[in-house]
Amino acid sequence: MEKLSIIKIGGNIIEDETSLNEFLQLFSNLEGKKILVHGGGKKATQISAKLGIEAKMNNGRRITDAETLEVITMVYGGLVNKNMVAKLQALNTNAIGLTGADINSIKSDKRPVKEIDYGFVGDVKKVNHVAIDKLMKADFTPVFCAITHDGNGQLLNTNADTITSTIAVGMSKIYETSIYYCFELNGVLSDFNDKKSVIKIINSEIYQQLLEDKIIVDGMLPKLENCFDALKNGVHQVKMGNTTMLTKENELYTTITL
Amino acid sequence: MEKLSIIKIGGNIIEDETSLNEFLQLFSNLEGKKILVHGGGKKATQISAKLGIEAKMNNGRRITDAETLEVITMVYGGLVNKNMVAKLQALNTNAIGLTGADINSIKSDKRPVKEIDYGFVGDVKKVNHVAIDKLMKADFTPVFCAITHDGNGQLLNTNADTITSTIAVGMSKIYETSIYYCFELNGVLSDFNDKKSVIKIINSEIYQQLLEDKIIVDGMLPKLENCFDALKNGVHQVKMGNTTMLTKENELYTTITL
Repeated sequence: MEKLSIIKIGGNIIEDETSLNEFLQLFSNLEGKKILVHGGGKKATQISAKLGIEAKMNNGRRITDAETLEVITMVYGGLVNKNMVAKLQALNTNAIGLTGADINSIKSDKRPVKEIDYGFVGDVKKVNHVAIDKLMKADFTPVFCAITHDGNGQLLNTNADTITSTIAVGMSKIYETSIYYCFELNGVLSDFNDKKSVIKIINSEIYQQLLEDKIIVDGMLPKLENCFDALKNGVHQVKMGNTTMLTKENELYTTITL
Repeated sequence: MEKLSIIKIGGNIIEDETSLNEFLQLFSNLEGKKILVHGGGKKATQISAKLGIEAKMNNGRRITDAETLEVITMVYGGLVNKNMVAKLQALNTNAIGLTGADINSIKSDKRPVKEIDYGFVGDVKKVNHVAIDKLMKADFTPVFCAITHDGNGQLLNTNADTITSTIAVGMSKIYETSIYYCFELNGVLSDFNDKKSVIKIINSEIYQQLLEDKIIVDGMLPKLENCFDALKNGVHQVKMGNTTMLTKENELYTTITL
């Protein structure tokens, strides 16, 4: 089975031009087939503020109303995505920027209203791995922003980590797929105050122990649940760390397997 | 040779949701291979105004400074393009939204500074018809916004009519290519005050006569020059009229051939 790397970057990289350029160089150097998924960062919040659109919250949860979705579509789907594509082209990576609406690649359901109405937020329903693979086979490198569609003409704001893992699960039918979650930390830490206390390998057994010892808590918990879900559904491995894990020099990151 | 239709729509259609939805239905119904090119419309000007960015002019010419390019990238490349793609998907047209940076499809040179510095404006240098055809062969329908890139990481604001004709010239190497310029009028008019005075056929000979008689003047002149350039470079035919020329019922439009 041919190998495929799916790399996800977050706001911390996108917001800083030097970090972004360094990352794009590393991504371009990466051998083999690859897909990039990016979140949004603070730019959407900044543009919203300038446009006089207030951030809507409900019980501490961010709500995507129609105005906010417009800004997200402009900033993630336009400004961030297309500038990244242009920069990748300059590095000889034949990038193509996509939302889930393009080639009907990722279909979502608008999140049902229960206690909270999240607004125009999508929960991924179906990844069209056959359509995405047509781009891969043509030697194009997909660059996904965190927007999907419902198939009825509505774009939906969607969590970038979930997009990454669901694309990875879909592509696992065709490729030996690895996920690289790039974030601020060097990996999953055993001591949050020691940035170098990276747990190098987490498998199901170690994960249970880490849960019992309450080392995996807060924001890291859903991230790792998401990783194990992906692994159980065919993804080969998941790596978490900073962007230098894409180089061969850095060995300080977390590898997650079943 | 297989047939290919390239349809260009302008701001008048994009700005009005009813017109846009009607057009997208007509476009979806159109048989055979097709490409859509859209301009921007007033939305970019509106968003710029809200963001406090003044329209920069020089001798009556619009200047694309860095801030304006950001807005154009957001509005044309994000908001307009991606919403159109989502709507086309709902109509079972497997659309893919593109700038010229995506798959390195359209490379431009930044317009040289002579009397006026136009800013981040591109003059098309090369259309990558082979890359675009990979999408066509995969049965995807490209939807281009009026943005290209210079190959060095810089996006460039580019005239949508020119994008349309240069894509058409490029694709003519593979397909029998027809251009449909959709605009406010029913076609090229012999009497500007009579909206029904459509000149049904213009060929090189008739065109010379129309020029001598000063019937083709002002804004129509560069449009028609652009058409004849395309025809001389391999494009099969050009049609100009309102969007209903995409249906078989309407016979009131202008057909331009060599």
